[in-house]
Amino acid sequence: MLTAHTIKVLQSLDKKKFRQKYNLFLVEGNKIICELYNSNFKIKEIFSTDPQKLGRSDVPVTHISENELKKISFLQHPKDSVAVCHINTEKKSEDKNIQLILDGIQDPGNLGTIIRLADWFGIEQIICSEDTVDFYNPKVIQATMGSFTRVNIVYTNLVEYLSKTENVNIGTDMEGENIYTFQKPEKINLILGNEGNGMRPETEELLQKSIMIPRFGKSQSTESLNVSMAAGIILGQLFRV
Amino acid sequence: MLTAHTIKVLQSLDKKKFRQKYNLFLVEGNKIICELYNSNFKIKEIFSTDPQKLGRSDVPVTHISENELKKISFLQHPKDSVAVCHINTEKKSEDKNIQLILDGIQDPGNLGTIIRLADWFGIEQIICSEDTVDFYNPKVIQATMGSFTRVNIVYTNLVEYLSKTENVNIGTDMEGENIYTFQKPEKINLILGNEGNGMRPETEELLQKSIMIPRFGKSQSTESLNVSMAAGIILGQLFRV
Repeated sequence: MLTAHTIKVLQSLDKKKFRQKYNLFLVEGNKIICELYNSNFKIKEIFSTDPQKLGRSDVPVTHISENELKKISFLQHPKDSVAVCHINTEKKSEDKNIQLILDGIQDPGNLGTIIRLADWFGIEQIICSEDTVDFYNPKVIQATMGSFTRVNIVYTNLVEYLSKTENVNIGTDMEGENIYTFQKPEKINLILGNEGNGMRPETEELLQKSIMIPRFGKSQSTESLNVSMAAGIILGQLFRV
Repeated sequence: MLTAHTIKVLQSLDKKKFRQKYNLFLVEGNKIICELYNSNFKIKEIFSTDPQKLGRSDVPVTHISENELKKISFLQHPKDSVAVCHINTEKKSEDKNIQLILDGIQDPGNLGTIIRLADWFGIEQIICSEDTVDFYNPKVIQATMGSFTRVNIVYTNLVEYLSKTENVNIGTDMEGENIYTFQKPEKINLILGNEGNGMRPETEELLQKSIMIPRFGKSQSTESLNVSMAAGIILGQLFRV
């Protein structure tokens, strides 16, 4: 049974303010919840319509009805279980050879896709400007398909960070070097800007290089690629052996 | 003024059945509507809250209120105008050097993203299995950002088509050739399968080659890449000069 108070608290967790107040976030679906077991994230409790499928016994599990699940799920089609997890203390690791730097990414789906890409390419750290969408946002968590458990994500003052890093700061720009002929440095910060406005001018000033994906289509009206797609295509080149 | 009948007809156009009945589909937002002017698509009429912004005079434009716009728009945040357009007669062009073949793509966002990618890379034709989501679906049209006007999209029996084509049929498969060392044929059909189930067995039988994107992340739990992201990364390699 879910109390009205619990429902209210869980429903509030789609807002950053309340995630920070309670220091909690939600993960939905057994598949992703099981990935939490092998991660640094600690589960507080699980609400499940089918507790037997969850396996582990060291986390309190409450059996709930489908109707109760609907009340606490943020998904259009709720899955089997909802795990309430503790937010981790952020800790930047030392710079890695390839890192992603996000300057004001706003769309939860884009951030989720970028985290999933990072996981695919084995990128261990993503550094975000303070105004980048919160990765504990339930839409981001779901879009990562569990990849958020394997990538260290930190929020910081980018100008400060980019001024000090020894990685080469690389941005994207239609006037930049062609990714197909670009000679990649050993240590890279690939910087991705906001969906509508791109990078902030302060960030742009701290770039050492710019790259671009050549457009083969001839129409001038073709929209530039979505930021996560551009990231995927660029990473595909940077990881080319 | 919009009549109740017009509203009813326009609202029905999110269903394929009614698009086919009326032979009409909707395009929303001045930016994409203006791209229709230079395309093969014919506009029947436009409903706009700000007709002066539309420029052209050879299409009937009805001035509507914000409230009326809300009634006919499929967008969560309706834009300025809605164009009612005629569905084109499908006509397959001759095979191009690089084509995309879609075997049962279901998600409108994925199809839209793939059409936008094709436009970016100058791919002129996409051939879809008959059960691939209809590209006139309003969610697909919006996700293409206007690119559907520059790519020829046809629906056909894939087994029949793939048996006859002279292009090399290439699928994706984790056991396939590494995209970084793959020697690309001159004429390519890149085949992308359904989001959950991949290609149909009948399609798979008609492949001449398989390729894969190597995963650099070490975790076995990492989900495979989303189909449109995989398409982007593969095209990034196929177009490498």
